Amino acid sequence: MQQPIHVEELKSREVFPGHHARFIHGDHMTIAYWRIDKGATVPEHSHPHEQVVNVLSGNYELTVAGKPLSLEAGMVVVVPGGVRHSGRAITDAALLDVFHPVREDYR
Amino acid sequence: MQQPIHVEELKSREVFPGHHARFIHGDHMTIAYWRIDKGATVPEHSHPHEQVVNVLSGNYELTVAGKPLSLEAGMVVVVPGGVRHSGRAITDAALLDVFHPVREDYR
Repeated sequence: MQQPIHVEELKSREVFPGHHARFIHGDHMTIAYWRIDKGATVPEHSHPHEQVVNVLSGNYELTVAGKPLSLEAGMVVVVPGGVRHSGRAITDAALLDVFHPVREDYR
Repeated sequence: MQQPIHVEELKSREVFPGHHARFIHGDHMTIAYWRIDKGATVPEHSHPHEQVVNVLSGNYELTVAGKPLSLEAGMVVVVPGGVRHSGRAITDAALLDVFHPVREDYR
């Protein structure tokens, strides 16, 4: 991939309804830039990948292992591999997620 | 660490002159939130960790394997493990770096 990468030039994918992602894959990590529509939800799920959620803007409710966390810009949550989690956008929101290992399912 | 993490409440460390970082360590990744003063530099160095540089604000020149890259908000650079790189803040800047594996030297 040509560097530097311009995130806005990457193709966006609607991975869950109202959850639009642009992905960057390294050798060991995947970066996901999310644009999320107010009210959109992600059903509870888990994956073996460690995930770190960084809130860039908006308000987002992330429920991790059954515990709801109300997030806004400047907040971060570490979701260990295998832990169930779900999400809901309280407002339009922008998140930056990082995963290890690479999300082969998102290539 | 209590979740969610409020980045601004983490202790800031001046890792290189004018390069102030707040670190979050997961099981497999380290997240670094940098506040960088205009004109500050990082000398050329390398580490075995893969690093993904995300520019949140400002202008920053990152030189990777001898090639200077002029960065601004919305740009990303993947620096593979072992590749030499250096940096210089053209303006005050905010970067979000992610590393795999964990930066034990930054704990």
